[in-house]
Order: sequence, then structure tokens, then C-alpha cells
Amino acid sequence: MPDGTAAPTAEFDRDIALSPVSDRVDERVHTAELRPGWVVGGGVNGGYLLATLGHAVRRSAAHPDPLTVSAYYLSASRPGPATVTTRPLREGRGVSTWAVDLEQEGDVRISALATYGDLDLLPDDVGTTAPEPDLPPLEECWGMDQAPAEYRAFAPPLLSRFDLRLDPATAGWALGRPSGRPMIQGWFRLNDEREPDPLALLLAVDAMPPTLFELGLMGWAPTLELTAHVRARPAPGWLRLRHETRNLARGMFEEDCEVWDSAGRLVAQGRQLARQPRPAP
Amino acid sequence: MPDGTAAPTAEFDRDIALSPVSDRVDERVHTAELRPGWVVGGGVNGGYLLATLGHAVRRSAAHPDPLTVSAYYLSASRPGPATVTTRPLREGRGVSTWAVDLEQEGDVRISALATYGDLDLLPDDVGTTAPEPDLPPLEECWGMDQAPAEYRAFAPPLLSRFDLRLDPATAGWALGRPSGRPMIQGWFRLNDEREPDPLALLLAVDAMPPTLFELGLMGWAPTLELTAHVRARPAPGWLRLRHETRNLARGMFEEDCEVWDSAGRLVAQGRQLARQPRPAP
Repeated sequence: MPDGTAAPTAEFDRDIALSPVSDRVDERVHTAELRPGWVVGGGVNGGYLLATLGHAVRRSAAHPDPLTVSAYYLSASRPGPATVTTRPLREGRGVSTWAVDLEQEGDVRISALATYGDLDLLPDDVGTTAPEPDLPPLEECWGMDQAPAEYRAFAPPLLSRFDLRLDPATAGWALGRPSGRPMIQGWFRLNDEREPDPLALLLAVDAMPPTLFELGLMGWAPTLELTAHVRARPAPGWLRLRHETRNLARGMFEEDCEVWDSAGRLVAQGRQLARQPRPAP
Repeated sequence: MPDGTAAPTAEFDRDIALSPVSDRVDERVHTAELRPGWVVGGGVNGGYLLATLGHAVRRSAAHPDPLTVSAYYLSASRPGPATVTTRPLREGRGVSTWAVDLEQEGDVRISALATYGDLDLLPDDVGTTAPEPDLPPLEECWGMDQAPAEYRAFAPPLLSRFDLRLDPATAGWALGRPSGRPMIQGWFRLNDEREPDPLALLLAVDAMPPTLFELGLMGWAPTLELTAHVRARPAPGWLRLRHETRNLARGMFEEDCEVWDSAGRLVAQGRQLARQPRPAP
């Protein structure tokens, strides 16, 4: 476990750091400090919160890796202190399952369930039929440096936490020319060249702009539920993210995010149910 | 609420029936009787359990419809009595979120989170880019009546709870000739012509045989986690199910199930993470 041994040097690790508070009979209570740099729309980014919850479970569990995490977002989290409580539901030999809650000001903001295991101890066979994202080379994709000045001026703090380079074919929304197809893809790397690991994958599945931007539906899309499956330990280097929606109905839409590593493996899959974007506050 | 007013006449409703036991300060305790007819592989079917949990939340919540439910399967459930406990996490005007557990013999077998709302009160706009399942007509698909006698003799009880007619192009596994592509699709209708509703959709997302049968990997595939999104109230009549896997890795695979109704709408999406099939016990 990295925490408690040496001070984390990368921004991501500093920002998901936890102080243990106390062990109760059935649960362990940690304190987090949610950083303002992760704000987007009406609250703190859901992927950053998922990584913070995942960090708390990793510190509590005998198994190091999230295999699946499902988070229900009850109300928006704000920058500032938060309490993260982990409670074992079943601790088996190969996997363990946990309940984890994040509270601020006495209110539960997120309630989650998670199953942890050890990715290195699982069978090595892989059979992927999903096609790799078809991305232009990194230098042909658009980062924040290429964004119009009027966009940069209003860009949420979140977009300064990582280097996200969007495929121009799926970034027309940034120029007011959405493609009409709810899919956005691009290259992703954390600040400080912090290499990806399973906790970073929990962030990555919710790091992209809402897919509905490409339908011209701009604004903040609050997540109701987000489930991430971590399928392999990612190789170092850039990740490729592909974010797509198949169904917009009843004011809600699902977003499927695939995360591919530099070795060409599908290392994480995320699916969330979100409310249709509302104009930014 | 149908329960408590008239005895349910369809098998599905009888089998997910609940008796309330007691209201405690923060939770409500219901008693279920898990029926042996829903057994498959090493336990009771996960979709039947999800519908039973969903029924308990519906009886507790001010909102009638599951919008999203995430269940973590800790150990196999067995036919017989079970206790289902519902606990509100947040009760809002438009939606409410619940924790719900199923216990047998003092052990929590399933822990779940769920957000409920009212599908009839949500906006009516629909934009679906997913293609409808391309299924042969009902009479050209294979039901249990067409299965080889030696298969029928060993078929799990689950397959007698509904009429499932598989697209022959995705049912080669039943004849020992799997297609090599992990996708299975077909028509689905509950016994007694019980019409689909949101609770039945919770069953439908886990009613199909494992997709990996079409890779020749037979046997029981225990679910670790299953999330269902209910996207619209289904029209009466047959449902069409499409069940597909994109990634088999580290001994685990995800299964995405789409449920389409007779009006041509994508009414539910399910995704589960399961362990690779093991030979049936």
C-alpha cells in the first residue's frame, strides 16, 4: 500500500489521499479532502470520487484491486472534507465485497458496492471481440492548448487535471459543430505522467465530456449510477478512451466508456446512467 | 401496489410475492419464499432474485419503478425462505435511492443499491442509435419444444418459467456446434402470458444462457455483479433479448443484455460481470 509509507508525489495520489480516523466494530472510517481542482458542472467529478472510494476500500481489503465498483450518486459532492466509511460484506479467499459511503456535512453523498480481488492471480487468457478505438495519432488530436480561448476561459477545473486529447472527428461540439453522433473518443494521461493503475481507471471511466455534447445538448449531466469493471492491470503510458451512448430516453441516457491501454488491451469498462444535460449553472 | 389487494394469478407474481415482517427505525423487513422452479447451475437465477429485491423496494418506495438496480452476488441463494431488508438512503421528490439485502440462514447472499422513480412522469423524448435485434420470426426460432430430448432431460428448471425462443443462428451450442461469436438472442415471454413490466425486465436481463456457450464454454457462469437500467415501461407482448460479450479476460466476462419491447423500443439494458463458466456440478 503506497499510503503511509511515503508522501505521494503525483497530483492524483495527493488528491485521493486518506487519513484513517477510527476502526469501529464493523467498519473503518477514513477522512478525505476533496480538492477544488476536480470540480465540473454542479459538483466534484464522479470519477475522482469513485477513485477516492476505491482507495478507501483498497486500504481496508486484503485484495488490492477493484474488479467491479457500483456507485449511486445521491447528491452533489463539494470541495472540502469528507468521511469515507468502508464495511466488509463478505471476505473470501479470492475476492471480497465491500459497502462504502462518502458523507459530507452529515449527508451521504455517494453509496457504493465494490468487489475486490488480485488481478495478478487471475487466469491470463483474453478473448476480446470489441474493436480498439480508431484514433488519429496523439499529435493530431485536440488538447486544451488547441481549444478556442473563449472555451478555455470557461473550462471546468477538472480539465486541467489530465491531458485529454480528443479525436477532432468527435470534438466538433467544442466549435459549435456537433457531429450528431453521441460518441467522443481520445487519448488520456494523468498530470505528472502518473502511470495508470486500477484506481486511475476508476477516474478514467468518467473523465470524458458527456457524449450528448455531440448531439448539441450542452451542460452538466449529473450521474445517477456508475459501474466500473476493471479487467486488467494497465500497461504504462497513454490510455485511449471511447465514450458512447446508445439510448437517450425519458430524460436519461447511458454512457459506456471503454478504456484501452498502450498494450492494446481493453482494461476497463464503465457504464453510467445520467440525466440529460441541463444548462450549466 | 398489486400485493395485499388480490392474490396474484401469474406464476411470476406468485413467486416474487413478499410478506412484510416488521418495520424497524430505519428499515423494513420482508419475507420471500425462493421457489425451486428458478434454479439454474449452482443456485437460484440472479434475475429472479433481482426481481424479488426490486419488488421489495417497490413496496417500500414512494416511486413505483426501478430506474437502476445494482446487485452484488456474495454467495449462491437456495430455494426456501429468505429475508429481504430495504433501507432508504435518500428520498427525493423525483427519485429515491435504496439499499436492499437478501439474507438466508443469517448470511447476506445479495447486497444491492437501487434508484426508483416514476417512468410515466419523465420526459417523453427518445433518441436510440442502437439497432433493434435482427431476429427471425417467432415461429422460426427454437423453443424448448424443439430442443433435443437429451438436452431437455438435463435442462435447468429455470427454462420452464418462460417461453424463450432462440435465434437458430445463435443457438448452435445446443447442438454442439457453437457459432464462435459470444452473442445469443431470442424472443422472451413469461409463463401465463404475464405481460412485461419493469419488475419483469429485471428478470429478463439475466434470463438468457451465458453468451460463452457460443464459444463452446459450457457450464454455470456465476454472476459477481449485475446492473439493470429500466428505460421505459414496456408495451404488452413478446420481448426481444440480445445478449453479448465484448471482453473475456482474467477468467471473467461481461454480458450486456438489451431488452426491446413489441413497440420497437429499447426498454432495458443490463450488464453483468460473471466468472467464466465452470462445468455444471
